[in-house]
Amino acid sequence: MDSCITPLRHGGLSLVQTTDFFYPLVDDPYMMGKIACANVLSDLYALGVTECDNMLMLLALALKLTDKERDVVVPLMIRGFRDLAEEAGTSVNGGQTVKNPWMTIGGVATTVCQSNEFIMPDNAVVGDVLVMTKPLGTQVAVSAYQWLDQPDRWNRIKLVVSEDDVRKAYQRAMFSMARLNRVAARLMHKYNAHGATDITGFGILGHANNLARIQKNEVGFVIHNLPVIAKMAAVSKACGNMFGLLQGHSAETSGGLLIALPREQAAAFCKDIEKQEGYQAWIIGIVEKGNRTARIIDKPRVIEVPAKEKEGELW
Amino acid sequence: MDSCITPLRHGGLSLVQTTDFFYPLVDDPYMMGKIACANVLSDLYALGVTECDNMLMLLALALKLTDKERDVVVPLMIRGFRDLAEEAGTSVNGGQTVKNPWMTIGGVATTVCQSNEFIMPDNAVVGDVLVMTKPLGTQVAVSAYQWLDQPDRWNRIKLVVSEDDVRKAYQRAMFSMARLNRVAARLMHKYNAHGATDITGFGILGHANNLARIQKNEVGFVIHNLPVIAKMAAVSKACGNMFGLLQGHSAETSGGLLIALPREQAAAFCKDIEKQEGYQAWIIGIVEKGNRTARIIDKPRVIEVPAKEKEGELW
Repeated sequence: MDSCITPLRHGGLSLVQTTDFFYPLVDDPYMMGKIACANVLSDLYALGVTECDNMLMLLALALKLTDKERDVVVPLMIRGFRDLAEEAGTSVNGGQTVKNPWMTIGGVATTVCQSNEFIMPDNAVVGDVLVMTKPLGTQVAVSAYQWLDQPDRWNRIKLVVSEDDVRKAYQRAMFSMARLNRVAARLMHKYNAHGATDITGFGILGHANNLARIQKNEVGFVIHNLPVIAKMAAVSKACGNMFGLLQGHSAETSGGLLIALPREQAAAFCKDIEKQEGYQAWIIGIVEKGNRTARIIDKPRVIEVPAKEKEGELW
Repeated sequence: MDSCITPLRHGGLSLVQTTDFFYPLVDDPYMMGKIACANVLSDLYALGVTECDNMLMLLALALKLTDKERDVVVPLMIRGFRDLAEEAGTSVNGGQTVKNPWMTIGGVATTVCQSNEFIMPDNAVVGDVLVMTKPLGTQVAVSAYQWLDQPDRWNRIKLVVSEDDVRKAYQRAMFSMARLNRVAARLMHKYNAHGATDITGFGILGHANNLARIQKNEVGFVIHNLPVIAKMAAVSKACGNMFGLLQGHSAETSGGLLIALPREQAAAFCKDIEKQEGYQAWIIGIVEKGNRTARIIDKPRVIEVPAKEKEGELW
């Protein structure tokens, strides 16, 4: 699913690795480096892997950057990437840089581990619940922020949000995307998770469907609650649902983990992650008997997730 | 140097990995896939690593490709990459594809191995000789081939080469770039190599200098012979040395290994590789006392390397 697992020639070990790269979406190069790093590592964390042995960095530098811009922007991106790798207990050794019409940043995360260090994602059972560890709406927030400078776009949404709302949502999105899913990965072991995936380009419903499709048991996923960065549900509606946020289609970058957990453990998982990190996780749905698909109920409850004070201070 | 080596938490094992990606340079997508794969693996082979545990493929698809072009070109590139990975005894599990103004292809090669499976590159000693396993001139050959359709360029070189010469050189370059350095890596162990690197973007002199710089002993590399794809030395000269081929500056793609070997083993190494693969290797220089730099003598001997008959038949 999220990473490839290759059995090795040595003592029951497996090679787990993943790669991802994309185009910058926030205007702070240091945070962009962090987001790219968090996004790559997230595929390992979705397997419950908590230790990454090495990262490679993949960079393409935009041709239109002036030398001066490049000398400012690129070291900041690299530092952001490296700093978050260090926070994740790993380091960046190796990579490749090319020139390209578009800037891209990404990487490769690799770990070598025993089979008890990862959790196969295909063991959900009827009665499990679904937990999500970050709010939805990163793409909406990033777009709304860009529209502050585009009057025709801004006019479409200014009735439902203030400029301050948008700045706070953008800030919340940026810090959320730059946050590691590592504690969640660790707690997947403690609370006996039956499988997980991370939420990125296909949106919550797309990834829920991908996770449902590979289940060993005849199960289906039903999503009742949608935690969304504050005001972004209203923005998505005001845009005529071009994002499809409440339909579960809006792309996320470096989103949370979606985890199937035994019902009796889920609340403790959420409490534990909040205690350790100061960020909420939410029970958003259930696992029932089904044909390996996922759906969102007709009128899901939207949980508005505000920006955090401490992020505001950093910002 | 060519790959990063990370000690692992498990039983004395090391993680060796490398990444590389670039822009297509031949017009046959299947061969381009092979060349990209050979080029990535070459960094492992330069360390004497012969087993690759997994590869990832990194693809960026050009925006201007039509759907029809994409449906023909991309599967062929992927098949070329996968076929050569299979020939190398490994496989491709994972990767990433994006859209981009320019097409790019590349990958990641990873192996987990015991410390006796790789050969550190920094043990050259005075008296060693330098062996090279592929001829130089790939960039000159690819450029000359493109110039067949550009009269103003072609007029500059048509006095020294025929169209047939250029087509043969291009064909030789393409097959050379798509050839694995794996047998050479295996023979590095058999003949007690003291270190190696692979020749790519910095040209023979650039990579020789990089290898010299990291040596433990106070040595210098002196290059006397330059094996070059037939006629390409003349083409380079006719272009006013814009490539710098005979100065050692011309970029190579998926070039040969440059290996420091004990003098008494080098001839046997060359004979063995030719017996196994049907391709020549050459003793091109010596290791003498020095300050960790490399140079090419004033008038190096140019060895003209013709296209092989069997390549012509395949072509």
